[in-house]
Amino acid sequence: MVAVASNLRPEAIRARCRDAQFCAKTSGLAAGYVQCNVVILPSDVASYFQTFCQRNPKPCPLLAMSPQPGDPSLPDLGNDIDIRTDVPRYRIWRDGKLSAQTEDIADLWQSDWTAFALGCSFSFEEALLDAGIEIRNITEDVNVPMYRTNMPCAGSGPFQGNMVVSMRPLPAADAIRAIQICSRFPSVHGAPVHLGDPRQIGIDDIASPDFGDPVSIRPHDIPVFWACGVTPQVALEAARLPLAITHEPGHMLVTDLKNAELAIL
Amino acid sequence: MVAVASNLRPEAIRARCRDAQFCAKTSGLAAGYVQCNVVILPSDVASYFQTFCQRNPKPCPLLAMSPQPGDPSLPDLGNDIDIRTDVPRYRIWRDGKLSAQTEDIADLWQSDWTAFALGCSFSFEEALLDAGIEIRNITEDVNVPMYRTNMPCAGSGPFQGNMVVSMRPLPAADAIRAIQICSRFPSVHGAPVHLGDPRQIGIDDIASPDFGDPVSIRPHDIPVFWACGVTPQVALEAARLPLAITHEPGHMLVTDLKNAELAIL
Repeated sequence: MVAVASNLRPEAIRARCRDAQFCAKTSGLAAGYVQCNVVILPSDVASYFQTFCQRNPKPCPLLAMSPQPGDPSLPDLGNDIDIRTDVPRYRIWRDGKLSAQTEDIADLWQSDWTAFALGCSFSFEEALLDAGIEIRNITEDVNVPMYRTNMPCAGSGPFQGNMVVSMRPLPAADAIRAIQICSRFPSVHGAPVHLGDPRQIGIDDIASPDFGDPVSIRPHDIPVFWACGVTPQVALEAARLPLAITHEPGHMLVTDLKNAELAIL
Repeated sequence: MVAVASNLRPEAIRARCRDAQFCAKTSGLAAGYVQCNVVILPSDVASYFQTFCQRNPKPCPLLAMSPQPGDPSLPDLGNDIDIRTDVPRYRIWRDGKLSAQTEDIADLWQSDWTAFALGCSFSFEEALLDAGIEIRNITEDVNVPMYRTNMPCAGSGPFQGNMVVSMRPLPAADAIRAIQICSRFPSVHGAPVHLGDPRQIGIDDIASPDFGDPVSIRPHDIPVFWACGVTPQVALEAARLPLAITHEPGHMLVTDLKNAELAIL
């Protein structure tokens, strides 16, 4: 793992990914710029996945996709993006199982592949921090806790499954403010999908997240739940595709899009 | 009490108030039009009250006031309004105590009096109902439950006191949606001020409201609390003014302003 300066601009971070100088987590890098979840699929399932995103915009907010199959650029997110090299670290999935982690997929890339870039919670976390709201996973310097729920996604072809949510404990006044702020950003998960009792959405033990790390919940906190970008990864696993690529969690595609550009109001 | 047809337009309702044909509650009347809380004060305290509203816009959203002391019109809310006669029923307060209820204050009106018209929860309740959200006090056909809290208002001269809140129990998804919808309407109390544990804001027994009626709270409901227009009435009582006038709760000034006009986005 090689770190980079936090004030590097997105294109400089991508250049360092491209020549293998950088392969670490992107949290806190390129402040103000949108970072993306990435899913790369062969053509026989890509249109099903596109529809899965369209039908489930809160967990799967599709920001951009390959202009055409086999084209590794993502011009909507940056002029120079090459999705085969510009993500710090990739996961290779075979038959629905994690098969390898790598810093480059140039050798694997096929002429019928489509890349999907999905909005990520880093964008709304920045907006919440800017508003003076404390975000527990950032305060405690851990990954946000994430949970499988009983809330079904709308299915599309092989892509099925329940929504995964991330949880941030907030005092009531901050929870209300967070709903207002996140409502401005529908393309990065938008407003929370639930708050209060975790059991109502099928979470039995809030102290034991299915992904990420537990965080402290203080006496006056309300657990607030957002649709999470791990949802498509879970749907991908369930689809048991012969081959699929995603980013390694936390190792996001850093784009030239500004978070502020995503605000709808 | 004389009822009127629910499809009467605001000016027709006011005309019937004016000639004493109507003196009942206005809930459900003139759908789509703004109804107001009313406070009428002599000049020595009026500017303090104006500042109290300015400093506490959530409980005291000032929509309009007399163009000048002694002028009984409210041209911002309707061309023909005469605040001395156009409210269905008034309360007369002497030394901070309810002294009388009446349908007309023309004989009491003084040349230095100022009338204040404040936004009312009927406006946001309409927006919530339009969005398909069930409002318990409407379903159960009772007055909304209201509670004294431990949240202090910013004081102004003789006007001091804690905020009064109204409570509507909502399932989590509706609570989130209600926060979004009410955020569009800051001039009628705006977004909720609290949700979840009532004790955090000094409410010991949710089943025993200080004003209005209790409502059912179902297993998946979260209590959601809005700043309430009874707050200024409580501040008025505490001020122990020799003389003050308000509307009788539920008997609102019906205006020509449309609720939709109040939406800020």
